[in-house]
Amino acid sequence: MMSKPKVTIHDIAERLNITASTVSRALNDNPRISDVTKKAVLKAAKQLNYQPNNIAAALRNGKSHIIGVIVPTADRTFFSSVVRGIEEIANKLNYKVIICQSYDDYEKEVQTIDALLSARVDGIIASIGKNTENFKHYKRAQEKGVPLVLFDRTTEALDASQIVIDDYFGAYKVVEHLIQQGCTRIAHFTSPKKVSVFKERFRGYTDALRDNNIPFDEQLVVSSNLQLEDGRKSMEQLLQLKDIPDAVFSASDYGAMGAMQILKERKIKIPEEIALAGFSNDPFTSFTDPPLTSVDQLSITMGKVTAQIFFEHLNSAGSNNFSQKIVLKPEIIFRESTLRKQEK
Amino acid sequence: MMSKPKVTIHDIAERLNITASTVSRALNDNPRISDVTKKAVLKAAKQLNYQPNNIAAALRNGKSHIIGVIVPTADRTFFSSVVRGIEEIANKLNYKVIICQSYDDYEKEVQTIDALLSARVDGIIASIGKNTENFKHYKRAQEKGVPLVLFDRTTEALDASQIVIDDYFGAYKVVEHLIQQGCTRIAHFTSPKKVSVFKERFRGYTDALRDNNIPFDEQLVVSSNLQLEDGRKSMEQLLQLKDIPDAVFSASDYGAMGAMQILKERKIKIPEEIALAGFSNDPFTSFTDPPLTSVDQLSITMGKVTAQIFFEHLNSAGSNNFSQKIVLKPEIIFRESTLRKQEK
Repeated sequence: MMSKPKVTIHDIAERLNITASTVSRALNDNPRISDVTKKAVLKAAKQLNYQPNNIAAALRNGKSHIIGVIVPTADRTFFSSVVRGIEEIANKLNYKVIICQSYDDYEKEVQTIDALLSARVDGIIASIGKNTENFKHYKRAQEKGVPLVLFDRTTEALDASQIVIDDYFGAYKVVEHLIQQGCTRIAHFTSPKKVSVFKERFRGYTDALRDNNIPFDEQLVVSSNLQLEDGRKSMEQLLQLKDIPDAVFSASDYGAMGAMQILKERKIKIPEEIALAGFSNDPFTSFTDPPLTSVDQLSITMGKVTAQIFFEHLNSAGSNNFSQKIVLKPEIIFRESTLRKQEK
Repeated sequence: MMSKPKVTIHDIAERLNITASTVSRALNDNPRISDVTKKAVLKAAKQLNYQPNNIAAALRNGKSHIIGVIVPTADRTFFSSVVRGIEEIANKLNYKVIICQSYDDYEKEVQTIDALLSARVDGIIASIGKNTENFKHYKRAQEKGVPLVLFDRTTEALDASQIVIDDYFGAYKVVEHLIQQGCTRIAHFTSPKKVSVFKERFRGYTDALRDNNIPFDEQLVVSSNLQLEDGRKSMEQLLQLKDIPDAVFSASDYGAMGAMQILKERKIKIPEEIALAGFSNDPFTSFTDPPLTSVDQLSITMGKVTAQIFFEHLNSAGSNNFSQKIVLKPEIIFRESTLRKQEK
C-alpha cells in the first residue's frame, strides 16, 4: 500500500503552464475560460488522478453537502438515535452527515469545530458538552456563515435555534403517575451537575408533589452521577432511613437499575413495596425483571425536527431568519416496575 | 442568523490584485513569495475573516489531521466502543476523528467515501456494510494515497490491514463451557447472512460438539435475523421438538434475550432446565434476570489496535508497507444464565 502526495490544482497548473486560478476557474466551468483551456484542464486532471470532489465546489460556493453533528458521545443510545433521525432527513436531501464526539471535554469540542470548519461542512448541529461554559468556538462558526442548530443540551448564550425535550413535563408526569398508583413517599435520584435537564427533572418532581399535597422531604433526594453504582449506593442510603420510601424516581435509567439490583438482593418487592421509575427509556429498560417504567425522549423525532429546522436555516441563508426554540413533550412508558394497581 | 458566502483565496487575490496561486503560496510561507506580499496577504485574510484552517495545509501536503471512520451504525454498542478506542489513540496524536454511518447500505457507503475524500481526511478506518460486495469505492480512496484499515467486517478483496475478532474461538469456548456445565443437547441460533462472523460462530459450535463427542442435530439449529422477536420465535420452535434442548447458544445477545423471555413466560428454569448464552456482551446482558453469559468482543481494545495499525501505515506512507491481519481473542463472560454447577 503505497501513499502518494495528493494532487492539487497547482500540479495541474504546473503541467499546463497556466495559473492555479485559471485551473480553478476551468474546473468550475467559469465562462471567462476558453473551451480549449477547459478541455486541457480536465484532461490533465484525469491524467494526474486529481480528485474532482466537492472541495472545488466548497471553495467556490461553500456547498460541500456535508453536515457536521457534534454529540458528547455516540455510544449513548439517545444521541445515536437523534443522529439517526437527522440522517434520515439529510440523506433524502442528498446531504451526508459526519459525526464528531466531544466526550464532554471543552478542548475537544473546540478542536471539533475547527475540524468541521476545515472539512468545509455546510452547517453544524450540536449538543453542547457538560463542561462547556464559553461558546466562542460556536460563535466563530456562526461568524463564518455556517448555520448552527442546537439540540437537547443547548444554551441561551448563542443566537441559534434549539430543539429540546420538556424534562419538567416528563418528570412531573412520572411522579403524578406514582402518586396515582398509591405512592406517598417518593424519593428522587438527581445529579449535582449544572446541566439544566437535571434541574428541570427535579423541578417536575417537587411541583408534582406540591400539586398533590405531598410534603417535600429533602432526606428523600439523593444526588450522584446517576450511574449504576451510584444507584446502588443511593438505594442503600434510602433503605437506612427510619421511614423508607415507597417509590423511587431516578433522573437516569442506570440509577434506577442500580436501585433495582439492591431491592432484588434484599428481596424487597417491586412495585408492591417500592415502585421504581427511570428516565431516558434506554433499550435495556424493557429487559429488566420487572421491566422499568421510564420517560421516552423521542430521540428519532428530535433528530428529524432538528434536521428540518437546520435546513430551513440553510435554505434561507442571507435572508432574515429568526432563531426558534422547539420543545418536544416526552412520553411516559408505563411498565411493571410502577404498576401497582393495573393488571399485569 | 445571517449566512455569508465563504471567503476563499480568490477573494483575497481579488482584493490585492494578485493571483490566487500567489495567495496560496503566501499563506503557505513559500520562500518564493516576498515578505511584503506575505504580510499583505495575511492582513487581507484577517480583514476578510478568511478561515486560516487546515484546508490550506490539506491542499499543500494532504495533512488535515482528520481520520474518517465508517461504521454500519453508531448506535450499536460494539461499533461505538471501537470508535472510542480509535479516538483515544488518535486524540493523543492530535488527530480528530469523524464518524460516518453506512447503515449497511451500499450506495450510502459509496457516498460516504466521497464525502470523506472531499473532507480531505488523512485516512479511512472502516467496517464494511453487510450488503457490500463491490469494493471499488475503497480502492478509489487507496489509489489516491489515502491509507485504509478495516476492522471487524473486513474483506480479503482489498489490500488493506484488518483487525478482527476470532469468532470461531469465542463460539467454541462458549459451547465447551456449556458441555462442562452438563449440557448435552445444545441448540444454536444463527443467521443466514453471508457475513463471515456468523459462519465462524457456527463452525465453532459444530467443532466444539464434535470434539466432545456430541452428535450434531440440525433440528437444533435455527436461522433468523437474530433480533429479539426472532429469538422468541426460535425458542418457541425449539420447545415444540419432541426432545427439547437443555441449552441455547445464540449468535446474538438479542436472540438470547428473546429466548429468555419465552422461557420465563413458560416458567422454564434458567439455567437448570435450559442454559442460555449470547454473543457480543451488550450492556443489557448484565441487567437481565438471570444475567446472561456472553462473549465480549474487546471493542475498546480493537479500536486501539486498529488506530495503532492505522498510524503505522500513515507514518510509513511511501515506504514499503505490508498489510497485516490481526486476530483478537474474545473473552467469555460467565454469568448465571449458564452456571449450573458453580456457586451463585
